Amino acid sequence: MASVRGYFHPKTATGRSSLIPEPPWHYSGDLLTVEYRTDPARVRELLPEPLGLAPEDPGAVALIWADWQSCGASREELLDPVRAQYKEAFAVVRCSYRGRVYSRCVHIWVDKDFAIARGLHQGYPKKLGSIHLTRSHPYGPAPRIEAGARFGATLAAADRRLAQAVVTLREPSETAGFVNGHPMAHHRWLPAIGKGGGLALDELVESGAASFEGGQPWAADAELELFDSPTEELSRLAVHEPIGAYYRQIGVVWDGGTLLESGTSGAE
Amino acid sequence: MASVRGYFHPKTATGRSSLIPEPPWHYSGDLLTVEYRTDPARVRELLPEPLGLAPEDPGAVALIWADWQSCGASREELLDPVRAQYKEAFAVVRCSYRGRVYSRCVHIWVDKDFAIARGLHQGYPKKLGSIHLTRSHPYGPAPRIEAGARFGATLAAADRRLAQAVVTLREPSETAGFVNGHPMAHHRWLPAIGKGGGLALDELVESGAASFEGGQPWAADAELELFDSPTEELSRLAVHEPIGAYYRQIGVVWDGGTLLESGTSGAE
Amino acid sequence: MASVRGYFHPKTATGRSSLIPEPPWHYSGDLLTVEYRTDPARVRELLPEPLGLAPEDPGAVALIWADWQSCGASREELLDPVRAQYKEAFAVVRCSYRGRVYSRCVHIWVDKDFAIARGLHQGYPKKLGSIHLTRSHPYGPAPRIEAGARFGATLAAADRRLAQAVVTLREPSETAGFVNGHPMAHHRWLPAIGKGGGLALDELVESGAASFEGGQPWAADAELELFDSPTEELSRLAVHEPIGAYYRQIGVVWDGGTLLESGTSGAE
Amino acid sequence: MASVRGYFHPKTATGRSSLIPEPPWHYSGDLLTVEYRTDPARVRELLPEPLGLAPEDPGAVALIWADWQSCGASREELLDPVRAQYKEAFAVVRCSYRGRVYSRCVHIWVDKDFAIARGLHQGYPKKLGSIHLTRSHPYGPAPRIEAGARFGATLAAADRRLAQAVVTLREPSETAGFVNGHPMAHHRWLPAIGKGGGLALDELVESGAASFEGGQPWAADAELELFDSPTEELSRLAVHEPIGAYYRQIGVVWDGGTLLESGTSGAE
Repeated sequence: MASVRGYFHPKTATGRSSLIPEPPWHYSGDLLTVEYRTDPARVRELLPEPLGLAPEDPGAVALIWADWQSCGASREELLDPVRAQYKEAFAVVRCSYRGRVYSRCVHIWVDKDFAIARGLHQGYPKKLGSIHLTRSHPYGPAPRIEAGARFGATLAAADRRLAQAVVTLREPSETAGFVNGHPMAHHRWLPAIGKGGGLALDELVESGAASFEGGQPWAADAELELFDSPTEELSRLAVHEPIGAYYRQIGVVWDGGTLLESGTSGAE
Repeated sequence: MASVRGYFHPKTATGRSSLIPEPPWHYSGDLLTVEYRTDPARVRELLPEPLGLAPEDPGAVALIWADWQSCGASREELLDPVRAQYKEAFAVVRCSYRGRVYSRCVHIWVDKDFAIARGLHQGYPKKLGSIHLTRSHPYGPAPRIEAGARFGATLAAADRRLAQAVVTLREPSETAGFVNGHPMAHHRWLPAIGKGGGLALDELVESGAASFEGGQPWAADAELELFDSPTEELSRLAVHEPIGAYYRQIGVVWDGGTLLESGTSGAE
Repeated sequence: MASVRGYFHPKTATGRSSLIPEPPWHYSGDLLTVEYRTDPARVRELLPEPLGLAPEDPGAVALIWADWQSCGASREELLDPVRAQYKEAFAVVRCSYRGRVYSRCVHIWVDKDFAIARGLHQGYPKKLGSIHLTRSHPYGPAPRIEAGARFGATLAAADRRLAQAVVTLREPSETAGFVNGHPMAHHRWLPAIGKGGGLALDELVESGAASFEGGQPWAADAELELFDSPTEELSRLAVHEPIGAYYRQIGVVWDGGTLLESGTSGAE
Repeated sequence: MASVRGYFHPKTATGRSSLIPEPPWHYSGDLLTVEYRTDPARVRELLPEPLGLAPEDPGAVALIWADWQSCGASREELLDPVRAQYKEAFAVVRCSYRGRVYSRCVHIWVDKDFAIARGLHQGYPKKLGSIHLTRSHPYGPAPRIEAGARFGATLAAADRRLAQAVVTLREPSETAGFVNGHPMAHHRWLPAIGKGGGLALDELVESGAASFEGGQPWAADAELELFDSPTEELSRLAVHEPIGAYYRQIGVVWDGGTLLESGTSGAE
């Protein structure tokens, strides 16, 4: 009996049309991270049950810009790079669940559809945006990875700029920040098809990198500005106090996560 | 106790960030439809259980280009039209379910993220694409809606052209085609988060317009070309025999659907 | 002896690659116009010699959004509409030259390369931008062309919103504004290739529509906001006093202009 | 007496709106070069008087993909990278002029307006396109710069793919090709504003890098495909015989060129 195949839609007889291949997914990327403290109440209001604030530094936020090349196990996307390259900017907070601290992405913008699809699977609340970040380069005016090097990073959605940062490298660092350093606790939500029908999918999932390699992290100083928009709430995570900023080049593999619980978020 | 709100992600305290508002969704649009027959086996292979081929004319396909302006109940998107306007191209076939004939979208490309989100809810297998169709206009070189008027329509994804058509209006028509004229039978699928875990969501849903208004349909002649792509299978629905083509301006409201059954598709 | 052909670059043996065909160029479009008064000194500073302020109402500005379909004499672009459709937003002031009043476009953003090329020829100072305006539609939530109909219009460049307007139709009008109603007096400038070499091209040209047809203009009320940007100066033409707003659908033909004088602008 | 300023349009009182700053222009970039031989007659037909074929290997073509970050003397664009980053793909041939061999770009596509403006100044016949090339990266699945590393490169314009290549690094090389290694001999053409008025600007200019630095070039093997398009003629430079392929990271400064002669091209 015939069926349809493909890790994601559209499912077909061959599976070849799927917007994304099955995991593992492999990533090469450059990350600019700006960490700061906001009012913990603004973090709290983004955490549905059963999540709570992290016990330490509960108002910490990481705003991260990433310039990625990604692919499935075949790596074929890398040779047709319109299918591999994308950029994203995302805001991460921490939360606690059953006594353990998790990271949680609360806003994220990407610039390709395959990245949206992976986000649906992983519980990243992705929208389309326009994301730019300076890339290091060994020649010409672009910055080397060295003290004093300056990187710009910007984010826009729906033709409005939402955030911009200038990050100046200071010195090698032991870490590239702590806010995005835990396993992710994300919700996967989809409304029921019927009117007023609540949620058809309401899962709390955990995931993280299956493997990770990275270069020397650099500590940096950052100037960060957030801008209001009628359809976005990133600026609600207002900067109360800077924590730090970081630059790092990394390689990551993602290969699935774990269902923590289902049907409990109380989200409306 | 605080929770998070919003019809879609990202869910926040206010619900204002949601990529889409709750239904009803209102649409104004121009549609170019090209209907043709392909090998019914190529339709059959896209129909997972419990769906079967339509009993009459089972190889009929409609390839439809649409130029939309859409909004939620507040209609505020219309005044910030980057949030309201989008274009799409999609392939529709018919199928049978429990003795009734349904329409089913098997491939679709849109050019905005809010349209992708609505598709996830409705079971349309949306990807991003670049879609263009000539618009009628009362002055200058663009076509009036009249006999002999010619409209072009093109579709590309990942920098490859997938389809192009030239549609020439012939005469007023009683219909705008039959392939997309039934309630839609769509699947809503999402893989489980765990590796090799099957589907977390596997729903067969039915939906259709909550209300509809439309102008005079026009019958037309069409030249249609489909092109191969390594990541798309639209051209697998090869044109064996033209049926007809149509132009129509319409207004539609969508306000939810019905769950038909769950967990039965056998999709891999 | 072989030569190269084509109205614009790239010139080739066939001329087929030219970014634009030779005039006449035909246009179908919808226009939203917002007229207001700014400080005449801000207009004056944009007028190089030998141009001066218009004697009447010298601070009048028209900010115009247009949604176009355009083509050359063959009209073939209309059937491959990615080559025909574009949107633009532009600021027009008036000026005087040898005792006659002209219109002059001082800032303009478009979203296609062929529109940039035509602007280079015509002396419009075009940049790329993201432009959106509500389109009238006979069905669904989009506005009809009638009293009370509301249209939104937005402009962004380099991921920053530069202007937005909401225009509400009031009543049929005898005109669609006066600021853009004169022949255009534009400069065509190109720097000399040598360092510090001044201008290789410094022409003052006049042009206007070779033919024009249009529907009923509508008078409207407008709310207009201009936003600052580090690389744009549209907001320097600040709104001091509203004049009026207008909606109109038109057809236009452009078929060349006239050289007024050369080498006299003193532009640096 | 007030005038207007700015290296390019729009010229204003401050000069701040200019689409590009005055040279010098600084560039950091990665280049993938594929060299091959085509029918010399196809090169000859692109060379207007007084240019002729190069005496040696006259059918040699270089198709080059470049991923750039660029800026003016202030380098401020690098901190707002939407204004600095762009990609391009271009075809270069050689020609002879007064007994000397020059390189000449005959087709080029870029993805930003500031790059179009610089091309107008330098005589590059730029259109907008969608250009992608794999970037090397020290971590994850993207290639290191080493033997066996594979890079993909693609070009599309108007929603049609025009070229694609897969380049596999073989070994360090003394050069990164020879076709694009000479000073550039380009025409700067603009039609006269009057109907049938010939050319207002018809300059043959020479330019090249004011300074250059570069990493180790790598020799590579390439698979290259060119595709037809109704509006492009890149595929007319059909591949008759491969020459070689190269990868290199470079830094370049451009600071003006020299007028060779004017009014002599005979271009139509």
